[in-house]
Amino acid sequence: MDFNISDEVKLMQESVRDWFKRNLPLDKMREIDQKGHPMPKEVIEGLAGLGVIMGVIPEERGGQGLNWFKQAAIAEEIGYGDPTAACAAAFMAVMTGWGFTLDRYASEGIRRDFIRPAIAGKKFIGIATTEPGGGSDVAGFKSKAEKSGKNWILNGEKTFISGVEECKLWGGGYWVNVRTGPAPAGAAHKNMTSFFVPIDAPGVEMTECYRDAGRMAISTAGFTMTNVKVPDDYRLGEEGKGFYYTMEGFDNARILIGASSVGITQRVIDEAIPYIKERKTFGIPLAKNEGIQFELSDIYKEMEASRLMYQKTAWMQDIRYDEEGWLERKGKAKTFQPTDIAKWIAMLKWKAPALALHAAERAMLWLGAAGYTDEYPFQMAWRGVMSYVVGAEGGQNIQKIVIGRELLGNEFVPYK
Amino acid sequence: MDFNISDEVKLMQESVRDWFKRNLPLDKMREIDQKGHPMPKEVIEGLAGLGVIMGVIPEERGGQGLNWFKQAAIAEEIGYGDPTAACAAAFMAVMTGWGFTLDRYASEGIRRDFIRPAIAGKKFIGIATTEPGGGSDVAGFKSKAEKSGKNWILNGEKTFISGVEECKLWGGGYWVNVRTGPAPAGAAHKNMTSFFVPIDAPGVEMTECYRDAGRMAISTAGFTMTNVKVPDDYRLGEEGKGFYYTMEGFDNARILIGASSVGITQRVIDEAIPYIKERKTFGIPLAKNEGIQFELSDIYKEMEASRLMYQKTAWMQDIRYDEEGWLERKGKAKTFQPTDIAKWIAMLKWKAPALALHAAERAMLWLGAAGYTDEYPFQMAWRGVMSYVVGAEGGQNIQKIVIGRELLGNEFVPYK
Amino acid sequence: MDFNISDEVKLMQESVRDWFKRNLPLDKMREIDQKGHPMPKEVIEGLAGLGVIMGVIPEERGGQGLNWFKQAAIAEEIGYGDPTAACAAAFMAVMTGWGFTLDRYASEGIRRDFIRPAIAGKKFIGIATTEPGGGSDVAGFKSKAEKSGKNWILNGEKTFISGVEECKLWGGGYWVNVRTGPAPAGAAHKNMTSFFVPIDAPGVEMTECYRDAGRMAISTAGFTMTNVKVPDDYRLGEEGKGFYYTMEGFDNARILIGASSVGITQRVIDEAIPYIKERKTFGIPLAKNEGIQFELSDIYKEMEASRLMYQKTAWMQDIRYDEEGWLERKGKAKTFQPTDIAKWIAMLKWKAPALALHAAERAMLWLGAAGYTDEYPFQMAWRGVMSYVVGAEGGQNIQKIVIGRELLGNEFVPYK
Amino acid sequence: MDFNISDEVKLMQESVRDWFKRNLPLDKMREIDQKGHPMPKEVIEGLAGLGVIMGVIPEERGGQGLNWFKQAAIAEEIGYGDPTAACAAAFMAVMTGWGFTLDRYASEGIRRDFIRPAIAGKKFIGIATTEPGGGSDVAGFKSKAEKSGKNWILNGEKTFISGVEECKLWGGGYWVNVRTGPAPAGAAHKNMTSFFVPIDAPGVEMTECYRDAGRMAISTAGFTMTNVKVPDDYRLGEEGKGFYYTMEGFDNARILIGASSVGITQRVIDEAIPYIKERKTFGIPLAKNEGIQFELSDIYKEMEASRLMYQKTAWMQDIRYDEEGWLERKGKAKTFQPTDIAKWIAMLKWKAPALALHAAERAMLWLGAAGYTDEYPFQMAWRGVMSYVVGAEGGQNIQKIVIGRELLGNEFVPYK
Repeated sequence: MDFNISDEVKLMQESVRDWFKRNLPLDKMREIDQKGHPMPKEVIEGLAGLGVIMGVIPEERGGQGLNWFKQAAIAEEIGYGDPTAACAAAFMAVMTGWGFTLDRYASEGIRRDFIRPAIAGKKFIGIATTEPGGGSDVAGFKSKAEKSGKNWILNGEKTFISGVEECKLWGGGYWVNVRTGPAPAGAAHKNMTSFFVPIDAPGVEMTECYRDAGRMAISTAGFTMTNVKVPDDYRLGEEGKGFYYTMEGFDNARILIGASSVGITQRVIDEAIPYIKERKTFGIPLAKNEGIQFELSDIYKEMEASRLMYQKTAWMQDIRYDEEGWLERKGKAKTFQPTDIAKWIAMLKWKAPALALHAAERAMLWLGAAGYTDEYPFQMAWRGVMSYVVGAEGGQNIQKIVIGRELLGNEFVPYK
Repeated sequence: MDFNISDEVKLMQESVRDWFKRNLPLDKMREIDQKGHPMPKEVIEGLAGLGVIMGVIPEERGGQGLNWFKQAAIAEEIGYGDPTAACAAAFMAVMTGWGFTLDRYASEGIRRDFIRPAIAGKKFIGIATTEPGGGSDVAGFKSKAEKSGKNWILNGEKTFISGVEECKLWGGGYWVNVRTGPAPAGAAHKNMTSFFVPIDAPGVEMTECYRDAGRMAISTAGFTMTNVKVPDDYRLGEEGKGFYYTMEGFDNARILIGASSVGITQRVIDEAIPYIKERKTFGIPLAKNEGIQFELSDIYKEMEASRLMYQKTAWMQDIRYDEEGWLERKGKAKTFQPTDIAKWIAMLKWKAPALALHAAERAMLWLGAAGYTDEYPFQMAWRGVMSYVVGAEGGQNIQKIVIGRELLGNEFVPYK
Repeated sequence: MDFNISDEVKLMQESVRDWFKRNLPLDKMREIDQKGHPMPKEVIEGLAGLGVIMGVIPEERGGQGLNWFKQAAIAEEIGYGDPTAACAAAFMAVMTGWGFTLDRYASEGIRRDFIRPAIAGKKFIGIATTEPGGGSDVAGFKSKAEKSGKNWILNGEKTFISGVEECKLWGGGYWVNVRTGPAPAGAAHKNMTSFFVPIDAPGVEMTECYRDAGRMAISTAGFTMTNVKVPDDYRLGEEGKGFYYTMEGFDNARILIGASSVGITQRVIDEAIPYIKERKTFGIPLAKNEGIQFELSDIYKEMEASRLMYQKTAWMQDIRYDEEGWLERKGKAKTFQPTDIAKWIAMLKWKAPALALHAAERAMLWLGAAGYTDEYPFQMAWRGVMSYVVGAEGGQNIQKIVIGRELLGNEFVPYK
Repeated sequence: MDFNISDEVKLMQESVRDWFKRNLPLDKMREIDQKGHPMPKEVIEGLAGLGVIMGVIPEERGGQGLNWFKQAAIAEEIGYGDPTAACAAAFMAVMTGWGFTLDRYASEGIRRDFIRPAIAGKKFIGIATTEPGGGSDVAGFKSKAEKSGKNWILNGEKTFISGVEECKLWGGGYWVNVRTGPAPAGAAHKNMTSFFVPIDAPGVEMTECYRDAGRMAISTAGFTMTNVKVPDDYRLGEEGKGFYYTMEGFDNARILIGASSVGITQRVIDEAIPYIKERKTFGIPLAKNEGIQFELSDIYKEMEASRLMYQKTAWMQDIRYDEEGWLERKGKAKTFQPTDIAKWIAMLKWKAPALALHAAERAMLWLGAAGYTDEYPFQMAWRGVMSYVVGAEGGQNIQKIVIGRELLGNEFVPYK
C-alpha cells in the first residue's frame, strides 16, 4: 500500500483553495448564504475555469480526464472553501457525480448541447429522481413516459431537486427517471427509463422553491411535467435500465459528498483552533480545557478516518471504471465487486457528513453565544451540512441497509 | 413521594396550550421566525393576559403568587407552543427567571415603573451580564459604576443580551452588573454590584443586532453605557452582592429553560408521530422501522426523565424560597443546601436542552429532505433550541463543572 | 407533587446498608464472586431476617405488606451493597418480583410449602420461562402440560434460569410456563398456563450450570421435565392465562432490576470518588481533569434521572395494585393504564442497567490498569451488571419495542 | 495512493490464521482463558515457528526483516485468532513492539542471550515501566540505578507488568526504566536510563499476580529490585535517554495493539453473523431487525476505518525507520515528523481498542443470555480487550492529549 498523495493532486487542491481565498472568502459566502439563491453565476464560471466541474469526464468530451481520486480530492477542497456545502452540493455531487454518469449514457446531442456547456460553467445540469411520494425508495415513483413516434411524452412530478432556479436562469436540464412500463410485483425497479429533460421544454413547470434550513445559496424546488415531448435521442442508455444508471449516479455523487464533508470538517477545525487558542475563560485558553480539547481530538481523529475512507473509495471506483474499459484508463491489479464498492460508498456517505455536522455543532458550543451568530462560519456550516445528513443522495438509514445487505445477504434487507 | 400533578397545574397548562392554538399556531410562528425580530407586541400582551409572565411574583406585587413548580409547568407549555424557543427564552427565562429575582432586590420605584408594567406585557425587562470578554466567567467583566452624590455613573459594554430591540421599542430596562470596586485577587466576584438601567437612560447606546442561527423572533444585541447616571434607588440589593444575586437569577432562569426544553421535545414528538405513522417507504410506515422507532423510544424516555428532573428541581427551589420565608409560603418538611439545588439545576440545564436539540435533529432525519424545509417545524425548533445549548444562561461545560464541584469539592474545580 | 422520601423508607435503606457493611462487605463479596455459586446460604438468611425478601407480600401471608415504592428503595440498597448484581438478581428480581406475582396466583398449599419458607430465607423460588429457542419471544415456547385426572403431566425444557443450583441445595421450586393447548395462529400467547414445579419433583433434571461472564455468586442453568406430575393445585391462576401472569411478573421484576441498577451506579460513584480525588498524575488529582470529571458529572446526572424513574414507576405500580383492590391498600387519586405503566417499566429497564454498566466501565478506565484488577470492585460490577443488560428480564430492544408500541400503537410493532 | 495489499502480506496472514485454526481454535483458547496463566509454552513456540514474533527485526539479527506494515497485518491476524487479546498483548505489543525497540538499543550480549532466544519462542522479554505511583506519567517514577564500577545497582519496584510469571518460567528479562540522576524541575524525563534486567537476576522478586477481569492466559504482576546488579553492557543506548527510547517503544507497541484490535473486531463480526442470521425471534432472523443490523453496519464501518488507520500508521512508521537509515531499507518519497506519527498512533490506539470493546459488548447483547455465557467467544473477547482500553500502553485520555498537543501546541497540554 502507498499512502502518498501525488504532487499533482496537491497542486490541484491548492489551485481550488487559492480560488476560494481570492474569489469566495467566508465573508462573501456568508453574504450569499444570507441573500439566498440563486447562486451567483460567477461562482460556477470561476470553478469551471479551474476545470474541476466534471473533471472526470474524458478530455475528448470536454472534461479533464481526471480519475475519481483526483476529483474527490477537489471535492474536499470545495467543501473546505464553502463550508455551507452549497458549492459542493451543486457543482460536485449534482453536476459532477451525476453529470459524469449522465455523460456515459447520453447521446452526442445531449453532450454537445448541455454537458459541454455545463463543464464550461455556462449551463446547469442536475438530477430529478425524488417524487412527492419518496426519496430512497426510488422504485416507487409514478412519473411515466410513453412512446409517440420518434418521441416520448413524459408526465409526472419531481421534487426536492437541487438547482432548479439556477437551471431556469442559466439554461440546462435534468436527468429524469420515469416508468416506461408497469412495475412488476416485487421488481419495481424494472421498466424504469432515464431521460434528459431540458428545463425549458414545453410542459415543464417549476414549483415554488423550498425554504431550507441552510445551504441557502443553491435552490431546491421541483417541477411538473405535463405532456413534455422529448426525442428518443434524449433517452439515456437502454430502455428499462434507468434504475441501474441511477444507482451508478448515486454512487458517484455520494463519493463526492463524502469527500466534500471531510473538507467541511477540516475547515471547521481550522477556523475554530485560532479562536479556542486565543480566547480565555477564567484565565485559561479554551483549548487547554480537556472538555474542549478532547472533543477536538475526537473530531480530528474521525476526520482522518473519513479522509482515508473517501480516498480508498474513490480509488476503488477508479478500478471499477478501469475494469469496464472506460476510455482506456490504466488497468490495475485488483478488482472489486460493484456491491463491495457500494458498501464502501455507503460507509463514507454515512460517516463523513454526520461528522461534519457534529464538528460544526461542537465548534458552535466551544464559542458559546458567539458561535450562534453569523460572525463565525460555524452556524452556516452547521445548517448547510445538515442537508447532506437529512438525505441528499440518500439518508443515513439507507446507507446502513446497504452495508447490512453486503454483510448479511439480500434476504436480510429489513424491508423485504 | 407523590407524582400526581394537580388539576390546577393542568388547567394552567391547558390555558397556555389553548392560547397558542388560537393565537400563535405553528404556521404563524414560522412567519414570525422568518420575518425575524422584533417580536410582535401581541405575543407578550397575550401571554401576559394569561398571568404567566412572572407568575411567581407575589400577588401583592402584581404577580400570581405561583410557586416554581407551577411556573415551570407553564414554561413547559410555552416551549411546546413555540418550539423555536423564542417565547420561552424571552418571556420565561429572561423576563420571569430574572424578573422574579430582580423583583426580590428592586426598590418600590423599579417595581412600580418597570416590573408591574412588564408583568402586564407593556414593557420588557431583561438581564445584561455578559461582556465582550466572556459569558460564564461572570466575575471577569469590566463595566463599572462610581458613586456621585446620590447617583451612580455607569460605564462599560454588555453584549449577547436578549430582547434589546424589543426593550427599545416597548420601553423597559436591564439588570446590569458592574464593578463598584477593584477585583481582589482570587475573589473577582467581590465588589460586583447590580443595578437596574432603563434602556432609554441617556448614555445607553444599543449596538447592532446579531444575526443568529435561530430563535429569530427575539433580538440579541448589546449596549454601551457612557456615563449613564442612575439614582441609588436603582441599585439592586446591597452594594457588592451582585454576584450572589446573579447566581440566583441564573438558577431561576435555568429552571425555566429546562422546563421549556421538555415542552419543545414533546412538541417535536407530537408533530413527528403522525408523519412517521402515515408516510411509507418500501411499503412500510416509517414508524415501523426499528431504525426510526428506537430513536423515538429513546428520545421519549429521556424526555420523561428530563420532565421528572425539572419537576423535582422546581419543587426544591420552592422549598428553598419557603425556607427563606419568602412571603409566607407554606413551609415544607425538608431543606436543601442551595448548592444541592444548584447541582440539580445544572443537571437539568445540561440535559433538557441537549435532548431537545437531538430530538429536533432526529425528526428532521426521519422526514428526510422534507424535514429540512420550512414545511415542517423541526428545522426551526432545531435552529432555535441550539440557542439554549450554545449557552443561554450558561453552556454545557459550566454545568458539568457545577455538578463536579458538588460531588468532589471546590478544590477540584478544573480551572482553579 | 412531593419528592420527599419518608423517614420510614430511609430507615429501611439504612438497615440494609448496615447489614451489608457488617456481613457482606466488598472484600467478602469479591471472594464469593471468585469462588462462584452456589450463593452461601447465610446471605439469603441474613437478608430474609431484615424482612426485605418479598417484603411486598401482605403481612397475613408472611410478607411485610410493603408497597412497591419501599420494595424498590430496598432493591436500590441491595444493588448498592452487592454491586455484582448477584444478590439483587436472585433475591429482588427473581424471588421478590416473581415471588410476589406467584403469591397472587398460588394456592394455599404453594404459599405454605414454598413461598413462606422462601420469605424466611429457607427455600428458593424462581422463574423458568425461557426455552432453548428464545427469551423475549415468550409465546414461542414448546413445553407443554396435559391433564391426567387431578394431575398435570409436564414435559419440556427450560434454560437460562437463575438459581437452579441454589434451589436444588436449599429446596424450592419454579414458576414454569407451558402450553396446555395448541398455539393459535397469530395468538401464540393463548393456551399458555403457569404451574409451580418443585425442583425435586420426579422427572425434573437440572442441566449443567452456565459459565457466565459475571454475577458469579448465583448459578444459571436449566432443567428438563420428563413426565413431571404436579397436582392441579400447583396450577397458577386460571388455565390459559399464563401469558398475562408472566407479563405481570416481568413488570415487577424489571422494576426491581431498575432500582438495583441505580444502587450499583451509586456504589460505583461512591467507590470511585475517593480514588480519583487522591490519586495524582502529572501532579494533578485525577478528579480535577475535565476528561474524568465530566464523565462523572454525566453519570451522576443520569443516575439521578434513573432514580426518579424507578421512584415514579414503583409509585405507579402501587396505584395499579390499589386500583385492583389488592388487599385493601389505600386508593389514590389517579389511575394509569397497565400499558402506560409497562412503558415506564420498559424505559427504566432500558436506562438504569445500561447506565450502571457504563459507570462501571468508565470507573475502570479512570483507574487504568488498577481498575482491571480485583483490587477494586469496578470490574466485578462491570461483569455482573452486564447480566442485566444482555437480557435478564428482557433485553434492550424488547424495551424499545414496548415504548414504541405505546407511542405508536400495536400495528407499529416492528416484528408484526 | 495505492490500497492494494500484496499477496505476500495475505500469505503471511493466511499462515497465521491457519495456525490458529489447527492449534488454538476458540474452544481451546476458552480453556486456556478459564484455566488462566501461565500461557502454555506451545503457544509461543508455535507462533515463533511462523517467524511472526519480532518479525520486524532484521534477518541478520534473527528476525524476518519485515516492515511494520507486514508486522501489523500479522498482529491483526493474531487478534483475530485469539480475541481475548492475550496472544496479541504478549507476543505482539510486548515482545514485538518493545522487543524490536529493545533490539535497536541493546548490546550484542543481550541480543544473543535474550532477544534471539525470544524470537525463537524460548524466552520471554518484556517491558517494566509502570510503577506503583503511575502509568502514563512515565516521568514520575522512583526506581533508580547507581554506577558501581563497571556495574549498575538497581533499586525500585515495577508493577502492572505483562508476562512476569511466563518470564519466570521460560527465562528472559525486562526492559526497565530507572533514574540515573535527579529529576530536574519541569524536566522529569531527563536522567532516565533504560536497562535490561534478567528476571532471574539476584535481588529481583516477583510480586503476586493480579487477578484481572480478562485476558487470563497471560499473567500480570510486578517485581521489586533490591540491589540488583547488572553490567554496563545491559544499559540500553545512552545514559539519560531512556525516556525517548520508551516513547519509541510505546509507539511501536501501540501500533500492534491497534492492528490486533481490528482483528478482534473482525472476529467478533465473523462469529456473530452466522448466529444472528440463523437465530429467529418472533419468526424473524435477528439480523433482519434494524435494531441489530444497524449496529452491525456501524461496527463494520468503524472497523474498516480503523483498519485503514493502522495501515497508514504502520506505513508512516516504516518511512520513519527508512529515513533513519535503519538497516538500509528502501527510502520513500515523503517524510513525517515523529510527532505527526505519534498523533496517528494515538488516534489508532484510542479508536481501535474502544471499537473492539464495543463490538464484543453489542454481540453479547445480540445473543442475549447466551452471549453472557462461555458458549460463545464474545464475553472472553469483551473481558480481554478491556485490558487494552483501560490502559495497556496508555489509556484513552493520554491519547487524546497527544492528539491535542499536535493540533494545538505544547503549551496547550492540559496538565502543564
